Amino acid sequence: GRDLSCLIPTVLLVFPSSRELTMVNETQHTCSASSSSKSDGGSSSGSESSKDSSRCSTPVLDAERHERLREKMRRRQDSGDRWFSLEFFPPRTANAAVNLISRFDRMGAGGPLFIDVTWHPAGDPGSDKETSSMIIANTAVNYCGLETILHMTCCNQTKDDITGHLQKAKRLGLKNIMALRGDPAGEEWEEEVDGFNYAVDLVKHIRNEFDDYFDICVAGYPKGHPEAESYEADLKHLKEKVLAGADFIITQLFFRSETFLKFMKDCQAIGITCPIIPGIFPIQGYHSLRQLVKLSKLEVPQEIKDVIEPIKDNDAAIRNYGIELAVSMCRELLDSGVVHGLHFYTLNREVATTEVLKRLGLWKEDPRRPLPWAVSAHPKRRVEDVRPIFWASRPKSYIYRTQEWDDFPNGRWGNSSSPAFGELKDYYLFYLKSKSPREELLKMWGEELTGEESVFEVFTCYITGEPNKNGHKVTCMPWNDDPLATETNLLKEQLEKVNRRGILTINSQPNINGKPSTDPIVGWGPSGGYVFQKAYLEFFTSSEIVTALLKVLKKYESRVNYHIVNVKGQNITNAPDLQPNAVTWGIFPGREIIQPTVVDPVSFLSWKDEAFALWIEQWAKLYEEESPSRMIIQYIHDNYYLVNLVDNDFPLENCLWQVVDDTFELLNSPAQQ
Amino acid sequence: GRDLSCLIPTVLLVFPSSRELTMVNETQHTCSASSSSKSDGGSSSGSESSKDSSRCSTPVLDAERHERLREKMRRRQDSGDRWFSLEFFPPRTANAAVNLISRFDRMGAGGPLFIDVTWHPAGDPGSDKETSSMIIANTAVNYCGLETILHMTCCNQTKDDITGHLQKAKRLGLKNIMALRGDPAGEEWEEEVDGFNYAVDLVKHIRNEFDDYFDICVAGYPKGHPEAESYEADLKHLKEKVLAGADFIITQLFFRSETFLKFMKDCQAIGITCPIIPGIFPIQGYHSLRQLVKLSKLEVPQEIKDVIEPIKDNDAAIRNYGIELAVSMCRELLDSGVVHGLHFYTLNREVATTEVLKRLGLWKEDPRRPLPWAVSAHPKRRVEDVRPIFWASRPKSYIYRTQEWDDFPNGRWGNSSSPAFGELKDYYLFYLKSKSPREELLKMWGEELTGEESVFEVFTCYITGEPNKNGHKVTCMPWNDDPLATETNLLKEQLEKVNRRGILTINSQPNINGKPSTDPIVGWGPSGGYVFQKAYLEFFTSSEIVTALLKVLKKYESRVNYHIVNVKGQNITNAPDLQPNAVTWGIFPGREIIQPTVVDPVSFLSWKDEAFALWIEQWAKLYEEESPSRMIIQYIHDNYYLVNLVDNDFPLENCLWQVVDDTFELLNSPAQQ
Repeated sequence: GRDLSCLIPTVLLVFPSSRELTMVNETQHTCSASSSSKSDGGSSSGSESSKDSSRCSTPVLDAERHERLREKMRRRQDSGDRWFSLEFFPPRTANAAVNLISRFDRMGAGGPLFIDVTWHPAGDPGSDKETSSMIIANTAVNYCGLETILHMTCCNQTKDDITGHLQKAKRLGLKNIMALRGDPAGEEWEEEVDGFNYAVDLVKHIRNEFDDYFDICVAGYPKGHPEAESYEADLKHLKEKVLAGADFIITQLFFRSETFLKFMKDCQAIGITCPIIPGIFPIQGYHSLRQLVKLSKLEVPQEIKDVIEPIKDNDAAIRNYGIELAVSMCRELLDSGVVHGLHFYTLNREVATTEVLKRLGLWKEDPRRPLPWAVSAHPKRRVEDVRPIFWASRPKSYIYRTQEWDDFPNGRWGNSSSPAFGELKDYYLFYLKSKSPREELLKMWGEELTGEESVFEVFTCYITGEPNKNGHKVTCMPWNDDPLATETNLLKEQLEKVNRRGILTINSQPNINGKPSTDPIVGWGPSGGYVFQKAYLEFFTSSEIVTALLKVLKKYESRVNYHIVNVKGQNITNAPDLQPNAVTWGIFPGREIIQPTVVDPVSFLSWKDEAFALWIEQWAKLYEEESPSRMIIQYIHDNYYLVNLVDNDFPLENCLWQVVDDTFELLNSPAQQ
Repeated sequence: GRDLSCLIPTVLLVFPSSRELTMVNETQHTCSASSSSKSDGGSSSGSESSKDSSRCSTPVLDAERHERLREKMRRRQDSGDRWFSLEFFPPRTANAAVNLISRFDRMGAGGPLFIDVTWHPAGDPGSDKETSSMIIANTAVNYCGLETILHMTCCNQTKDDITGHLQKAKRLGLKNIMALRGDPAGEEWEEEVDGFNYAVDLVKHIRNEFDDYFDICVAGYPKGHPEAESYEADLKHLKEKVLAGADFIITQLFFRSETFLKFMKDCQAIGITCPIIPGIFPIQGYHSLRQLVKLSKLEVPQEIKDVIEPIKDNDAAIRNYGIELAVSMCRELLDSGVVHGLHFYTLNREVATTEVLKRLGLWKEDPRRPLPWAVSAHPKRRVEDVRPIFWASRPKSYIYRTQEWDDFPNGRWGNSSSPAFGELKDYYLFYLKSKSPREELLKMWGEELTGEESVFEVFTCYITGEPNKNGHKVTCMPWNDDPLATETNLLKEQLEKVNRRGILTINSQPNINGKPSTDPIVGWGPSGGYVFQKAYLEFFTSSEIVTALLKVLKKYESRVNYHIVNVKGQNITNAPDLQPNAVTWGIFPGREIIQPTVVDPVSFLSWKDEAFALWIEQWAKLYEEESPSRMIIQYIHDNYYLVNLVDNDFPLENCLWQVVDDTFELLNSPAQQ
C-alpha cells in the first residue's frame, strides 16, 4: 500500500501510545507529522492541551482548565494571540474586599490571562483574614475562576514561615508565585547568613521544596534595580533568578517603550530566553503617580512632567492623558513584534485600564461560557463539570460549601455517593455584589412590611424591573446578587404573573431543544455544538398553594418531577429517590455528552437550609426584633415550602406555567375547601 | 404549618437517609408513607430496586440489572405479572453448543425470568470445555444476558470439588444454584459419613461457605421423591432444604394441575412459604416421553396414554396434543391464583414451548431494549452503560474481550484510562448464528473470486438481500451474524450504491434528532424519553479511495470526525486524540443523560485487529492456500484501510453520503491522478 502520510502532508497522524502498543499487535511506521504541537515535555497536562489544540477555538472546555500558566502563555505566543494581565493589591477592610471581589468578576469578564495579588507584609499577608493577600488570591482563584499569581517577599522572614505560606498557597489551589525580595525592614539593610537575602534565594527555595509545582515569576527592572551596582549587574541578577527556576519575568513600570525594548534585547543578549512581560502603568492621577515614582525610585520623563504639571488638579484630564499615553506606548510595544502580553498595574481601579484595553482591542468580553456556570480555577476542580442547579445564582456559595471535597463530579453527578456539603456561615461574603448598606436594602425590600403581600410585591418588582411603591428598583434579592439573567428574561411575563400571586420564584430556566452552542443567550461550550435544557422552576410558596399544587401535579405525574420541602426538612417528591435529573446538557463535535446541571434530591436538602436561612440572614435581620416586618419574614421562613419543578418533556412547550395556572384555578374553584 | 403527609396520602414522602441527616440540621417528622415498597431488607441492591419501582415501566434501565433473582420473583408476584422460565441441558458437541447459544438468544427474546442449565456429571460439568454445564451457563449469563441458574449435584463429590465449582461459578458471574443430590453412582447407594448425601447438605454448604451470595433453588416432588419412604416424609425433607437456606422450589414435572395444587397446599400446610414453581413438560414426542418417565419414575395417567398410543408414530400429532395438554394445564394453574410463574422443561427444543407460551400470552417479545446493545448479566457489568460502537454487530466478542476488566464504563467512556482489550482467539465462537458449514459460506461469499469486484458484489448482495449470481442470498458476513438490522435498512439505498463501488460497509447508523424512546426501530430505554444519534459509517476501502476521501474530508473538517487505519496500525484522524465521541444518547424523565455508544480512538485500534483478522479467519481460509481467491482476500486484508466517519451535526441531513459522492467525483475527475 502507498504511504498516505507522504501523499497528504497536512493530515494529522496519530499513533497509539506505547501502552496501546502492548495491547494490539501491530507494526508501527514512523511518520513525520505528529498530533502534538507542544515543544515542552513535562507534566501530564501537556497531552491534555494538545488534545484540543487541533479542534477547538476559544473558549475551550478542557485545555484552559488543564494548562498551567506558563503553558497558556506559550500557547498564546505560538498562536499569535495577544493577551493582558492585571495587578491588584489587597484591600484594607472587609467592605473593600467585597468590592474588590466584584471588581475581579467585572474585570475578569474582559479575559485577562491572569491577575496577580501583591504581598502586603504589614497586613499579615499569609493569614486567614478576609483582607490578607493569601485570602484575596484564594478568592480570585477559587470563587472568581481567575488564573492568579500570588506575590511573596522573603526578606526578614524565616525559612519555616515561607514554607508555611507556600504550603498554604498550594492547599488553597494557588499555582503561581511572584518571588520578590521585598523591602528591607530598616533603613540600612544587611545580608543575613543563611537567610533569604534576594529573590533568587526564594526562587531556589520554592524549587527545592516544591519541585515543579509552582510557576514562578520574577521581577525585571528595565532601568536596573535602584539598589543594584549597575544596570549590567542587575541583568546578571535577573539571569540568576531565571537559572534558579523562574518561568517568566514581569517588569517594573517604565515610561517609554524604548526603555523596555532595549531591556528585552539586553536580556536576550545575555541568554535570558523566558517570556518578559512589560509592566504598564496608566497614569490615573497626579498623587498616585508621585507616590509610585517615589516608591519605585523612577524618574518621570520631562515630556510627561511638562504635560501633567499644568493640569495636576484636573483628575479627568490627567486620566485621559494617562490613557492616551498608555495606549500609544502599548501600541509601540505590540508593533515591535516581540511583545505578546501586557501587564497592567491597576492600583485596584477599573476605568483607566479597561479603557486602554478596549482601545487596544485586547478587552474581549466573550459572551460564550465554557460551562453554564462559573468555573473555579482550583486544580482539584479541573475535571468538575456537573453541579446542582440550585446554586445557579450563588456559585461562590456552592464552591465554598464544597471546598472540602476531594473529588468533583465529572460526567455524572451520581447518586448518594456525593460527600456532604459544608455549612454556609459567612452569608455576607457570598451574597451581594457589593455589601449593600442596610438602608439601601430597606429601600428595595421595604422599610415596613404589612403582610405576605408586601413580600410578593418585592419579588414582583425584582422580576419586572419596575420601581416599587416608593420609587426604588429592586436590583437584587437575598437569593440573587444580580438583576434578572438574560435567559430568565425570556420567562419574565409568566414569572411576574405567578410572583404577584405568591409563587415566589428564585430560580428558573426555559426549556431548550437544541440551540447552537454559540447562541448568545443560552449557549455555552465550544462552537459547533448544540445545547438543551429541561424547563425548571423553583419557588417558595404557602402550604395552601402546595396542597392545591400536589393535587394538580397528579395529572402531570409522568411528565413533571417535583421536590417540595419545608424548613424542617419534610420532603415530598415523585422522583426516584437519590436519582439526579439532568436539566442542562450539550452535544459537541468529537466529544462525550456534557451535562453540567442536574436537579439532585440529596443536595436539594442542603440547598434548602441555605435558601431558608437567607430569609432570616439577609431580610428579617434588617428589622428590629419583634417588629411586625421581621415577624412576617419569620412566618414565611417557618411556614412556606421550597418547591422545584422539572418538565421532562423538553421538546414540547413548557408545561410548568400550566401547572401553576391549574393550581390557582383549583384554589379559586368553589368546590375547593 | 399543616402536615401535608396527612392531607395527601397518595404522595410519596422521601426522607433523607441517616447519612444525609448528619449533614443537614433538620427536624425529621415520622410519616406513614415510605418510598420503599420492599419488605425484605438484606443487600444493597434492595434500595436500588426501590429507586425505580415508583417510576419506570418495563423495560427498566437499572432495576432488572440490579435485582437478584428472588427479588425479581417477588416483584413479579407483588405486581401480578406472570412469568416463565426455561430449562436446558448442556450439548454434546461444540457445534451443538453454538446452536444452543443462538437458541438462548431467540428464546431469550420472549422474556424468560431465568433459564437454568442442568449439571451433567458424566460430561465433566465444571470444566472449561465449551460444552460443560459451567461454560454453557457462563455463556447464557455473560454473552446472552440471561438470568441463569446453574444446577449442581453433590453426591459422589468431595467438599473441595464442590467448593471449587461454586467458586468458579461465582467468578464467572453466576448468582443462582439449583442444589440437587444427583443420582447415586452404583445401583445400591449408601450414605457417606461427612459426605454430601442429600441436597440439603449442599444447601447448607453453600450458605456456610458463600453466605448469602447465591440464590438457591431446590427441587420439589409433587408425587414425592421416588426413593422417599412416603409423600409426607418427602415434604419434610423439602422443608429441611428450605430451612437450610433455599430461596424457592422448582417442581418435578407432573401431568395434572391437581397434583401440583395439592402439593402446594401440603407444602404450605407444613410451613413452606417460599415460592414454588411448577415444572411444565410439554410432551414433544413418544420416545422422549417414555425416556423421561423412565428416568423420573413417574406414571403417565391413563387418559394421556389412551390418546398417545394410537398416534405414537405421528410426531406432529403428538406434539400438537402435547401443546394442547400443556396449555390447558398451565391455564388451570394460573387460574388457581396461587401460581405466578411456570418453569418449562424444553429438552433443548424451541417449537413446543414457544407455542405454549404464545398461546398463554406469556411470550413477550419486547421490541424495546434497555440499552441499544445487548447487555450482559454478569454482576460486574451491572453499571456498564457505555460501549464503543465498533462491536455493535458482535456484542459477544466485545464481552469476551473485556471479560477481565474490573470496572466497566458508566456514564462516560473516558479517555485512555480504559484497560486493554483481550485478544480474540476463538473466532468461531462469536461469529455466525450457527456455525455455518464451509459449503454454505462458499455459496454466499463465492466459490471462486475473480478480483476485488467479486468481493464488492458479495457486500452489495448482503445489503440488498438479493440473491448473488449463483442464486444464493448472502444472509451473513464475517462482521455480521444476522441480516441487515431494521435500523440499517433505513440506509439501504445509499449503502448499496457505495458498496458497489468499493466502499465495503460493515457498520452504520442514521442520525436521529430526538425520537421517542419507544420508537420501534431506533428506541431504547424507559418510556417517556428521547433518543438521539450522530450518523456513523464504517467501511473497508482501497488506499486510492482513501487518498481521495482525505482530500474531500478537508471540506468537512469541522463537521466530520474520521479515523482511518490499515492492518499495520497506521492511523489517520482529525479527532482530538484519545477523546471519545458520543454517537448515541438518550434523555429520560428524572435521570441523568445516558450515552451508551461512543466512537473511541483507542478501542478502534483493538477493533481494527479483529475486523481485519475476520477477513482471513472467516473468509480467506475457506479457500486453498495459494489459490487466487485466497490471495484476493489476503490482498484486501493487507492493503485496504478501515475507515469510520461521524457526522457531528446530528440535527442536519446526514452529510456522509455527500462525502462519499464527492470522493467518487474526485476520483472520476480528469484532473485527478
